[in-house]
Amino acid sequence: MDRRDDNNCIQGGEDIENDGGGGALFERRESDASSFDGSVREPLLHHRSRINNTSQIAIVGAKVYPIESLDYEIIENELIKQDWRSRKRVQIFQYIFLKWTLALLIGLLTGVVAFFNNLAVENIAGFKLLLTSNLMLKDKYFMAFAAFAGLNMLLATCAAALCAFFAPAAAGSGIPEVKAYLNGVDAHSILAPSTLLVKDKEAHEQQGQNPREQIFGSIFAVSAGFVVGKEGPMVHTGACIANLLGQGGSRKYHLTWRWLRYFKNDRDRRDLITCGAAAGVAAAFRAPVGGVLFALEEAASWWRSALLWRTFFTTAVVAVVLRSLIQFCRSGNCGLFGQGGLIMFDVNSSDPAYNTPDLLAVIFIGVLGGLFGSLYNYLVDKVLRTYSIINERGPAFKILLVITISLLTSCCAYGLPWFAHCTPCPAGLEKECPTIGRSGNYKNFQCQPGHYNDLASLFLNTNDDAIRNLFSSRNRNEFHISTLFIFFFGMYFLGIITYGIAVPSGLFIPVILAGASYGRLVGRLLGSVSNLDVGLFALLGAASFLGGTMRMTVSLCVILLELTNDLLMLPLMMLVLLISKTVADIFNKGVYDQIVIMKGLPYLEAHAEPYMRNLVAGNVCSGPLITFSGVEKVGNILHALQMTGHNGFPVIDEPPFVDAPELCGLVLRSHLLVLLNGKKFTKNRLLFGSELLRIFHAFDFAKAGSGKGLKVEDLDLTEEELEMYVDLHPITNTSPYTVVETMSLAKAAVLFRELGLRHLCVVPKTPGRPPIVGILTRHDFMPEHVLGLYPEFNHHK
Amino acid sequence: MDRRDDNNCIQGGEDIENDGGGGALFERRESDASSFDGSVREPLLHHRSRINNTSQIAIVGAKVYPIESLDYEIIENELIKQDWRSRKRVQIFQYIFLKWTLALLIGLLTGVVAFFNNLAVENIAGFKLLLTSNLMLKDKYFMAFAAFAGLNMLLATCAAALCAFFAPAAAGSGIPEVKAYLNGVDAHSILAPSTLLVKDKEAHEQQGQNPREQIFGSIFAVSAGFVVGKEGPMVHTGACIANLLGQGGSRKYHLTWRWLRYFKNDRDRRDLITCGAAAGVAAAFRAPVGGVLFALEEAASWWRSALLWRTFFTTAVVAVVLRSLIQFCRSGNCGLFGQGGLIMFDVNSSDPAYNTPDLLAVIFIGVLGGLFGSLYNYLVDKVLRTYSIINERGPAFKILLVITISLLTSCCAYGLPWFAHCTPCPAGLEKECPTIGRSGNYKNFQCQPGHYNDLASLFLNTNDDAIRNLFSSRNRNEFHISTLFIFFFGMYFLGIITYGIAVPSGLFIPVILAGASYGRLVGRLLGSVSNLDVGLFALLGAASFLGGTMRMTVSLCVILLELTNDLLMLPLMMLVLLISKTVADIFNKGVYDQIVIMKGLPYLEAHAEPYMRNLVAGNVCSGPLITFSGVEKVGNILHALQMTGHNGFPVIDEPPFVDAPELCGLVLRSHLLVLLNGKKFTKNRLLFGSELLRIFHAFDFAKAGSGKGLKVEDLDLTEEELEMYVDLHPITNTSPYTVVETMSLAKAAVLFRELGLRHLCVVPKTPGRPPIVGILTRHDFMPEHVLGLYPEFNHHK
Repeated sequence: MDRRDDNNCIQGGEDIENDGGGGALFERRESDASSFDGSVREPLLHHRSRINNTSQIAIVGAKVYPIESLDYEIIENELIKQDWRSRKRVQIFQYIFLKWTLALLIGLLTGVVAFFNNLAVENIAGFKLLLTSNLMLKDKYFMAFAAFAGLNMLLATCAAALCAFFAPAAAGSGIPEVKAYLNGVDAHSILAPSTLLVKDKEAHEQQGQNPREQIFGSIFAVSAGFVVGKEGPMVHTGACIANLLGQGGSRKYHLTWRWLRYFKNDRDRRDLITCGAAAGVAAAFRAPVGGVLFALEEAASWWRSALLWRTFFTTAVVAVVLRSLIQFCRSGNCGLFGQGGLIMFDVNSSDPAYNTPDLLAVIFIGVLGGLFGSLYNYLVDKVLRTYSIINERGPAFKILLVITISLLTSCCAYGLPWFAHCTPCPAGLEKECPTIGRSGNYKNFQCQPGHYNDLASLFLNTNDDAIRNLFSSRNRNEFHISTLFIFFFGMYFLGIITYGIAVPSGLFIPVILAGASYGRLVGRLLGSVSNLDVGLFALLGAASFLGGTMRMTVSLCVILLELTNDLLMLPLMMLVLLISKTVADIFNKGVYDQIVIMKGLPYLEAHAEPYMRNLVAGNVCSGPLITFSGVEKVGNILHALQMTGHNGFPVIDEPPFVDAPELCGLVLRSHLLVLLNGKKFTKNRLLFGSELLRIFHAFDFAKAGSGKGLKVEDLDLTEEELEMYVDLHPITNTSPYTVVETMSLAKAAVLFRELGLRHLCVVPKTPGRPPIVGILTRHDFMPEHVLGLYPEFNHHK
Repeated sequence: MDRRDDNNCIQGGEDIENDGGGGALFERRESDASSFDGSVREPLLHHRSRINNTSQIAIVGAKVYPIESLDYEIIENELIKQDWRSRKRVQIFQYIFLKWTLALLIGLLTGVVAFFNNLAVENIAGFKLLLTSNLMLKDKYFMAFAAFAGLNMLLATCAAALCAFFAPAAAGSGIPEVKAYLNGVDAHSILAPSTLLVKDKEAHEQQGQNPREQIFGSIFAVSAGFVVGKEGPMVHTGACIANLLGQGGSRKYHLTWRWLRYFKNDRDRRDLITCGAAAGVAAAFRAPVGGVLFALEEAASWWRSALLWRTFFTTAVVAVVLRSLIQFCRSGNCGLFGQGGLIMFDVNSSDPAYNTPDLLAVIFIGVLGGLFGSLYNYLVDKVLRTYSIINERGPAFKILLVITISLLTSCCAYGLPWFAHCTPCPAGLEKECPTIGRSGNYKNFQCQPGHYNDLASLFLNTNDDAIRNLFSSRNRNEFHISTLFIFFFGMYFLGIITYGIAVPSGLFIPVILAGASYGRLVGRLLGSVSNLDVGLFALLGAASFLGGTMRMTVSLCVILLELTNDLLMLPLMMLVLLISKTVADIFNKGVYDQIVIMKGLPYLEAHAEPYMRNLVAGNVCSGPLITFSGVEKVGNILHALQMTGHNGFPVIDEPPFVDAPELCGLVLRSHLLVLLNGKKFTKNRLLFGSELLRIFHAFDFAKAGSGKGLKVEDLDLTEEELEMYVDLHPITNTSPYTVVETMSLAKAAVLFRELGLRHLCVVPKTPGRPPIVGILTRHDFMPEHVLGLYPEFNHHK
């Protein structure tokens, strides 16, 4: 227990989230701040120091950002209470109406964006592939390669340039960031790094929330033939659209809408972004129910029944929008975008009857998927850490890396098919085989007429078409065993080395490609034992590999069912997912969780760690505190705001206003800034809260978009004003959640997590001491922090 | 604020959950207890007194039971901490292994039970219908009616007798009870009323958890031709199976398993019962994903990602079991149970193309569904309240009511088809039409050969077959418009008057039947405008009516998709569900919520009521308190246990052990009983907790099954022992959640609900007062209680 007093007081200073840290530590903190800049250079592969590093800074790409927490607590101060009392019925209807309108808009926009994304990809990639195959038909093989690789490289460079110069956070899948945001990490600053870099330029303030880099980057990256998908970026895009809408439009273009002030709080934004993430998945896979389940299982940390209902509405809108647009395209208005535009694989296996050997084969695929999946996660993690060293050297290195990978991909895609044997076209398919001058199953490549190259049919195709080919059940022997083997290894390793380069890159499609190829391979090899269709085997392989990497169950199952439109294989799919997840969970965590950890985002787990049961809240909390009096001198407040980065300060009512010091509540930095900016001060120490209630309105204190709120530097106070007093009562949250210092840390963690808090006040157990002993923040519950203080629990982990 | 002091102290005494109520109120409480018995006679239709009625007693059927709460808080006392520290790795594996084994067993058993349920129903009902139609073929029309009505009545009487004499709680759907249990209401005593009535008979103790009455009752009721379904009872059965397994088997039959002691707590039981409920839906509809979503959306109040995963496993097992058993039956081993055994309707509408008029028709169906649904809920509520007056007069009245309804149903089913016209069989279906001597589409009834009676095809059929006929899309004009009209009204009103009689009765099937008939009716009427298939219209009608009564969205959508095996109509289904739910929500609550309220179960909503923002925790909490000292006299404890029904007592550490009185924690009644039963007392006031830690083990204090725990009457203490002291520290939960008395009631309610608490300690704000001012329980957050204390907020509702 005594270790608390010497250890925590020091630790408190090193807290960057640093809500309510140490008053005696101003100097220390300053020096800490400079040391953060120093640590930027430290590559991720190095062992980081054990204490206080995780939740201080997020490492995204090569940039390091301080992390803020979101606040899902219902703030109850006098100002807000006054607002409730005066709120009229019509305003409640406004709010409900707006909520649904926003959900509708998110669905509409995400659907339209997803559609145009696909349209562009299909047309660009289709043009590229047609050009290549036309050149090959004229036997200009080297020129074909040059055109293919050149176009790929050009597109890749565009994608990389967008990412490197405009939106570094657009790189990667985006799902880990959305996940962290929905867990309460303020990923606004992560999604919007440009706001930090170019603070002074108004024009750039909106940029981070602008999904355009993400959209165009994704189009370029997918068209460039990279082994990347568009679903992760779509989820990110959906979330960005929701965020942009929730912020009340763009202030720059005068598109703000006054009604949207209701949504200027973290809770409503969280709901909108959950809807956005669901809409993204729904749009990427045309899977509305799958989208809802994805948001529920993977993305969201808090969930309410009402949200299920709203998310469902959003994805339904997406489904309707996509359907209408695709029907519009069926009439041939969309160039090369045809039937196969948005992925939808029809696996027609009429009522698969299976027996024991089939089940054994399926179990085998599940185990294989688990093993491959955990290995994939391990390698992705290693590759990402290596890339971060390269990427942090600057945009030029980023682009160079992208070009290298692009070249490698082009070589694989164009070079490997030369090793494949030509296969004669199956009988009865003379019209379709080989495919010349259009996209399709049987690529002619270098073969004589009437033959096709099966490896080229997989490699020299868009990812969607390759998946469709693998799932096809028409021709059992369409692909050679060696072909499937080569393609599997190609996809597996290209997928690993591609993720992490500076382009928007989804993980679903590479994983489905690799999984489907080994599933079909197993199906071919076990052909004598099992009666199941090879297309079904490919689907089960894809399911098992997805389960092994992403560790989702219900949502993956539903997404795959919606993709393939066949409910009869549900039991087999469930079995495969259960096995692969169980096997993979033995080795490591899901790929998104790994990336969240690697990026240093302080993700709060839903459960408390076992060793926390041996600690109490007082053991880890930061202290001593900076507290304010109920009526405080302006100078003191300004000093505290300037010298610390704390986001919450306890307010103590003191004599003469009360008999003995008591905890009045908690006041937020952002609210203090607004209050000081209003300059309603008094000469003497007086309660004049009722005055302030008349001047200010609750919406004045609404949370601004990231990078838009008041800064302490924006305040312009005279010497005279600094000597005056201000009444903090109207803006003090008088109902903060509290725990006694002897409360078990595990139970405090559950409270903190379940209620989505930002600050948790720790009060003393025995009377006669100051009314608050510390404040717990997200950072204090991080395993790294706790185990740093108490290394003896490390073996419990 | 001052109202707190005079008002609450009195209210505290009227609290039946009464954890930590008033010490000065012993006499008052006694008299209260007797007044509960008096209130039993009060019919539900009367307006109940405004204060303190909801959470005191649950009215199930005609019985009134005191309500207990479940406790999902992690208890942390010294004994349990010692156990954690000593727990070995192997025990953790045991626990995980058991968790999955239990999930497997729940899935297996529920699947098998569902299958045999169906097998029995199909065979009994099939025999009955064949007998009737054979008699009709011989022109013995009156005899046919006598046989039909007689068999129905016999089966109905069996079902009613089972319900009336053995398991009164088996009546009704069971879903509201499961929902309330998963919200933290101790529905054990509701599910197991016999334990309360026949406490002294060991043999009966297990009865309530025994699903056999439910199973047989459901078989009889469905076979009897009632307009009831088997899904509600299946959910109840699944939950009962889970409960029985989780209790560690039956002690009576020596089937207990020592390992199962890990599951002797409310949290693990909740998880098991969630799995059971999901398994029930999965088994009833052969819809594994739908089952998971049902548990998530409708049944469960708390949800974790890990639970999703386990529930999914359980329903996957159910799906595999059902599939194997059905495949076994395909070879003809199961009598009349054929292809159509477990419902699975194949609606084959290949890629429905729809345009604007179709969408308008769909919207119209949605609105209609919402209106019909809310009216249905209103009428069901009224009918239930009327029936409760009849039912409470005794088993004879119950059975009489059942017989009346059975006769009415028989008359409708046999009588109404006489009004229908005979239709000539469609060309090309000579083999199938009319159906003679077997189940099927085209019933001959009274018609001449080559003709069929379309109303008889619906009425004189099992419910599953009737639904299949309505969904069929082969013959657009199979059913006349007048037929559909009559059938809709028949089903609508029979459904309403059947629910609430003393048989197990699901709501899904009646609602689907009525919905499908008006859907098809609309389809027929709009035939000139819309191109959609009438079978599809029937499906959309069913969806809209389900949405209008039950107000689920995602789970209904997935269940219907899994039932009909057609993903392409997903967008239309989503649209219909959204509209019908929105429309119906304007008028009233979902049917299950209504029943929960009507039964007086204290269901905690996920959100706080708006008026709670104007109150603080201290305003509603019960006081003064009975508190114990850290080392307390045995006599005092026994007296408190005997005189009150409190389930939690605060423990205060007092001088000389500490400097000033401070709150040590909370001790539970059940733990106190075990401690007193152990008789480890000391002569003097001494701390001897370490001694107790050696004697007792944490499992000694594990929660027993309902009706199995120690009672205060079981204690046998001598006069001498009553004068001795016992150290309460080892069993005191030292980390109870606390709120300050000035905490907003809304925020305290959120804390209470989110963490699933049973007791929430209210501590004083100012120093110098006793360390605890009251305890909040589930009851204190009930709107009825709060609005009873503060009627001025009533208009806010």
